[in-house]
Parts: sequence; structure tokens; C-alpha cells
Amino acid sequence: MLDTIKDIIQYISQYHESLVVSFILAILAGLTAVKTIPRLKQPFLNAKLSGIDILKPNKPILPETLGLPIAIIYLITMFLFIPVPFIDWFGGKFFFSVVHDEAPHLGTFPYHKLGEILSAILAIQSMVLLGFADDVLDVRWRYKVWFPAIAGIPLLIFYYTNFGVTYVVTPIQLRPWFGDMIHLGPLYYVYMLSLIIFCTHSINILAGINGIEAGQTLVISLSIIINDLLYIYKNPDQRSVEVHLFSLYFMLPFTGVTLALLYYNWYPAKVFVGDTFCYFAGMTIAVVGILGHFPKTLVLFFIPQMFNFLYSCPQLFRFVECPRHRMPRVLVDNKNDQSKVLLHCSVVTLNQERKPTGKLGRAMLEFLNVLGLLHVISRDDHGRISQCNNLTLLNLVLSYTGPIPENRLTCTVLLIQILCSLLAFYIRYSLVKFVY
Amino acid sequence: MLDTIKDIIQYISQYHESLVVSFILAILAGLTAVKTIPRLKQPFLNAKLSGIDILKPNKPILPETLGLPIAIIYLITMFLFIPVPFIDWFGGKFFFSVVHDEAPHLGTFPYHKLGEILSAILAIQSMVLLGFADDVLDVRWRYKVWFPAIAGIPLLIFYYTNFGVTYVVTPIQLRPWFGDMIHLGPLYYVYMLSLIIFCTHSINILAGINGIEAGQTLVISLSIIINDLLYIYKNPDQRSVEVHLFSLYFMLPFTGVTLALLYYNWYPAKVFVGDTFCYFAGMTIAVVGILGHFPKTLVLFFIPQMFNFLYSCPQLFRFVECPRHRMPRVLVDNKNDQSKVLLHCSVVTLNQERKPTGKLGRAMLEFLNVLGLLHVISRDDHGRISQCNNLTLLNLVLSYTGPIPENRLTCTVLLIQILCSLLAFYIRYSLVKFVY
Repeated sequence: MLDTIKDIIQYISQYHESLVVSFILAILAGLTAVKTIPRLKQPFLNAKLSGIDILKPNKPILPETLGLPIAIIYLITMFLFIPVPFIDWFGGKFFFSVVHDEAPHLGTFPYHKLGEILSAILAIQSMVLLGFADDVLDVRWRYKVWFPAIAGIPLLIFYYTNFGVTYVVTPIQLRPWFGDMIHLGPLYYVYMLSLIIFCTHSINILAGINGIEAGQTLVISLSIIINDLLYIYKNPDQRSVEVHLFSLYFMLPFTGVTLALLYYNWYPAKVFVGDTFCYFAGMTIAVVGILGHFPKTLVLFFIPQMFNFLYSCPQLFRFVECPRHRMPRVLVDNKNDQSKVLLHCSVVTLNQERKPTGKLGRAMLEFLNVLGLLHVISRDDHGRISQCNNLTLLNLVLSYTGPIPENRLTCTVLLIQILCSLLAFYIRYSLVKFVY
Repeated sequence: MLDTIKDIIQYISQYHESLVVSFILAILAGLTAVKTIPRLKQPFLNAKLSGIDILKPNKPILPETLGLPIAIIYLITMFLFIPVPFIDWFGGKFFFSVVHDEAPHLGTFPYHKLGEILSAILAIQSMVLLGFADDVLDVRWRYKVWFPAIAGIPLLIFYYTNFGVTYVVTPIQLRPWFGDMIHLGPLYYVYMLSLIIFCTHSINILAGINGIEAGQTLVISLSIIINDLLYIYKNPDQRSVEVHLFSLYFMLPFTGVTLALLYYNWYPAKVFVGDTFCYFAGMTIAVVGILGHFPKTLVLFFIPQMFNFLYSCPQLFRFVECPRHRMPRVLVDNKNDQSKVLLHCSVVTLNQERKPTGKLGRAMLEFLNVLGLLHVISRDDHGRISQCNNLTLLNLVLSYTGPIPENRLTCTVLLIQILCSLLAFYIRYSLVKFVY
């Protein structure tokens, strides 16, 4: 194992100088973020960008939206990185002696690659702008659900302008009917848009406790990095190597700034990440998945988020009553000892008179109950569920583990995320043989 | 004159379809902005994005930062416009039948043009993001003076990656010494950065009364559009036509949204534009000047801003005392009749004991006085200036016109801006023959 890692590092430093630059920039970006965040706490509090950490007994007011500065640091890092992959075309000579009429390789310069990087940064930055607008203006869900679609336009437009691939390889079992490839045409753009919307919002939904947003993002981004490294290592297919290098260029600095944010957002949090971070993270990951040509593998890394979303659906779409907040609740043993503060799952009471639950909603709950995915607290005289946990992954975990401290809940969910990533790798590298 | 305009319109609709699309998008963007701004007034007030209109007798609280939504509308318009100039390469077939292996023109596709558009939008969007961050967080001047430089990075990087021209044509009089062209090399990048910083902040400095920020922007953008149209009309040089088309693609929708904002910001203002708008406007104009290859002509359109900046320098750099606010002051004749509210120039009192004015500062004031650019109110026993108008263009105009209503002040300054644009055209198309 250690030998393989050493081997990979040696291989990279030998053949992929840009990647080394990207790695160094990632470290610098992370360190800059670590230095910057504490300085911004007061200005953010002054600007009323703040929130109450309601899961702590003393309910401290923390600065919110610290996702903004780390996103800006990330964007500046990416701006500076733009020319690096093209350094060969400049003969390594920066700034000096590059004049239009002296450029011999003009015809061969990979402008489409440059355009790809620019459109990716543009999409990410659009999402940061809209995310920040949401944090400040508190936009309603019915509008902001479309924000990622707007931010994704430059990416899709570039994909289109770049004569993008719009076919998917057919699974072996379906080939007799559909042929080796299915040309999705415009549907492929719908598919990409859905991916963007899903990635962006799913991180925002699995949220609410210290360290969970940045934590899950970190696990996903590390999974992507490992997947990329496995691809580029001694791969003879130059095109495949290139797209995964592209992915790494975006993921390494992203991981750097995410780590810095997690450091301050970890229990007990000193800052909140804000919607800005969730949007920024989701979009960056989606962009990399699309332009890196691994949208299916990417979806595999989102298994917990996908589960959380599907699990939430009965409440999100109002088949079952949905209280305004579904966050875990605090159980205080001893007010003065913060380590004794435990979280237990929050509960929804189905009030049959005020807001009757329909047949479909009840069927959903009973189905979840049969699967062992519901913690039923009480039933009414007719045997119908009258109290159960709110339908979020956090509450489900709590209903199994019982009351635990906030940091242990974060760790448990992150452990689930890691296990799911391992499962994703298993599917991607072993099971896939039976399908493709 | 009318015939010429008709001729130009006919010429454009015949040869430049993309321009017609851009024009239609500009109208749509403007109308969308007109519809959107009133709806956002309450949400912006709720989010505490608001300011007091202190030049009105009843001091109303108005929503601020309405530059953000119009910038977002502009950006979305530009996203949607991206593929339009390249429509020939798709054979006019949108979405359907564009598959990688069927693309015959792949080699000839002008990716560098696409990259140019993407990097321009990226720079503008970066400035919007930083401008909005400034509006929310109220960043100090010593930091935000560098914001345009940061936002300009993608533009300069693209310019560099695109083997950008870094020479300037030498004026005839200097050719014996320097040759026909001067290769500025890295200095050219410093020159471009300075232009970006200047354009962005100069609009932000000539501000403070209803309609002035959007008004001056409108005059400048219309001047650029006229200049572009003069260039593309029956010009045989294809390359020159292309860069000015590029400029028009950016300026037309920009003018559309600026008009919409001006409509609501005009006296008596219903909304404020915020730093976001000034930054957005300055950056868009600077980007167009740089990538449209007319930075020198652009500077000519900024004569009033340049004058205002130079005129302000003694106070900005603290050679002369600078009060916190230098806005014109209100002179109320009749509190109940708003039409009777007049503005007169605000005054700085040079307190020799508290904050002595240095010799250099005094010399500057006396120099301005000799030029007729200072309204001296009083002198002390030693004959030194002890009271004069604050050094801004607005106060200078007021010191000449005497107390006038706010809307007349705006109109006067805009008239100056228009006259300066005419002067710019005269310099550009007549005087220039003596220099180049």
C-alpha cells in the first residue's frame, strides 16, 4: 500500500508538473483560508451575517456565510492556475517575450481546454454569487431551487459549443434493444442540469449540525481525488488522463479551502458555513463530474445525500406533515457541562384533526417502518402512527444510536459517508464489469 | 443624418445577425430589469440593504444595492448569448444532431473567441461578487481599492494566454526616438490593470446624487456603442470589425439594464444602485475597452471622471483636510414643497489649529483658485484660504450655478459628460491625425 502511494507520487512529480503546482496552490489556498477566517468573524457579525447555534446550551451567536471568503480564495487560486496547464505553449517563458507575432504554436494552442476551465470557473462563481445573494436576501425555496440551473448555464452552453458528447453507453443487458450507445441529444442536457441541481441542493439538505456540510464535502472531494489518481496512474489513454487531470486541478484547491473551513466549523463551531458554501461545494463537484466525464461515478459518491433526499421526500412534498425545523433536539443533562449536552431525534406529531395525513403519506410511513427506517413513538387508538421521527438521515441515525453528543453524530454520519464511498469504489471497479 | 442611420440599420440587419440578436436580448434584459426591480424593493429593505436619501427633506429609507439584480440579469443574458456568434459553426442546428463525431468544422471553430467572451464575463462577474460583498460587509477603502485588480485577473490571464498584443503605436512626434511601436511587455499588463482600477472606482467616486451613477454610465456606454457602430459600418478590415462587434455584444445588453436601473434611480429615486452597480459598470466598460482594443478612446470617454478624480486628489490624499462626507448640502426654502429643496456646494473649513494644512496643500488650493476651479468662501487674517468648496465635480458645478435642485444638478453633470463625449469623438476622429 505505502509502496503504491510512493510510486504514484514519484510518477506524478515526473510526468505531471501542473498537478504539482495545483497541489502547492491547494496548500497555499488552505493556509490563506485558515489565516483569513478568524479575521472576518467580527466584520461578518457587524454585517448581521450571523446565526444562533441552537444546539448549544448557551446558544452563542456565530458569524455565518464564511463559505463566501473561502469561495473567493478558491476562485482567485483558480484564476492564478489558469495558465499553468498551458505552460508548454509558452516555452516556459512567462510574461516576457510573448508577443503576438512571435507565437509559433498559435494554431495548436488548446483553446478548447482553456475555454473548458473558464466555463467551469464561471459556473462555480455564478453559484457563489447566487448563494451569497440567498444568504443575504433569504430567497424562498420555490425560487432558489432553480439557482443551480441558472449558474449551470455557462457550463452547458460551453458543453454544447464544444460539440459535447450526448450519448451514454448502454448497459450490456439492454444492448439487444437499444444498441451499444443511446443518443440522448437534448435529454443529455436535462440529465446534466438535474445532476447540477441535485449535487447543489443535496449538500444543503444534509445540514444543521456542526461540521456536517464541510465534512461530507471533504469525504466526497477526497473520494473524487482518489478516483482521479487511480485513473491517471500509468493510464495509456491520453484523453482519459486529461479529463481526470482537469478534475484534480479543480478538486485539490477545493479540498484545501474546505479543510480550512471545516477546521473552524468543527464542533464546537466558531463559524457557520452558510448556504454559500453548500452551493459552492455542490456546484464545484457537479462541474468536475460533468467536465471530467464521470457523472455516474459521481452519483455513487452521493449515496448518503441521495438517501437523505429520498427519505425526506414524504415530508418535503407534504405527504406527511413537515414542521418548520427538523433538526435534532437538545437533551440537556447538565446545563453547565457542555460535554453532557446530548442530541436526540426530533419528532413529528401527526395531528389528525388539524392537518390530516393522507392515505399515501400513511402508507409511506408504514413502508419505512417495515424497512426499519422509522422510529415510531406512538400510535393512536386506530393503530395509526401518531408520532415518529422527522424524516432526515440525522434523525434516523439518532433514532438508532439514541441520544449522543453533537460531535459524535457528525462523526457517525461522516463514517457512513466514508463507507458509502468505499461501496462506490467497489461498484465502480468490480460490479461494473457485469453491466458494461 | 437620418438617411445614414437608416443605412446603418439596413447594413447591420443584412450582415450582422448576431448583433440583431444582441439588440433583442438587450431590450428583453431591460424589460426584465424594469419588471424585477420594484418586486425586490421589500426583500432588499428586509435584508437591511438600505440607505437614507439624505438630500430629501423627509429623508426616506430606500432599498440599496439594486445593482445586484440588474447585474445578475445582465450576466444571465450574456450566458444565453454565448453561442450566438458561433451559430454558423453549428449549421444553424441548435441542440439536435450535434454529436462529437459528426462535427466537421471542429478544427476551425474559433475557440479563442469563445474564450475571450468567457474570460470577459468571468471578470465582470468577479467584480459583481466583490462589489456585492463590499455592499454587505462595508469593506475598507485600503482593501477594496484592489478589488478590481483581483476581478481583472481572469481577463489579464486570458489576454496573456491568448498571446496578447503588448505593444502600443508610438505617436508620430516620438517615432524618431522610439520607433513605430513600443513593446511594453509586462508594463502593458500594469497599464491594463490601472485602466481596470481607474474605470471601476471613478464611477464610484462621481456619485452621491440621484441618477448620477447610472446616468454617467449610460452616456459612456452610448458613446462606446456609437464609436463601435462607426467602426463596423462598411469597414473592410475584418479583424477591426470583429473586435468592435465584441464590444457591442457586451455594451448593448449593458445599456439595456442600465436604462432600467436609471429609470428607478432617477430623481426622486426609488432605489439606490449601490457599489455593486458602480463596480459592475466600471468593469464591464473596462473589459470592453481592453478586449475591444480601444483603451485610449475609452479613456477619452472618461474625461469628467478623470477630472473629478484629479480634482479630488488633494483631499483624497489628505494634502487638504477631507471631511467624512463631501456631498452637496441641502438648503431648504420650504419644508413642505420638495421642488423648493435646493442643493448648494458643501464646504471644508481648514482648521489651522486642529489639522494644519501643509504648504503643498495650500499651493494646490491657490493653484485651483487661479484656474477658477475653487470657490473660496473666506480667508483668514494671514490671507490664507480658510473655507472653500469640497473638491468634487458636483460641488464645483454647484459653486458656479449656485443653489439648484438635485435633478438639475444631475442633468448639468450629464450634460458635461455628453459634451466631453463629443470632444472625445472630435479628438478621436480629427485631432488624432496629427498624432498617429
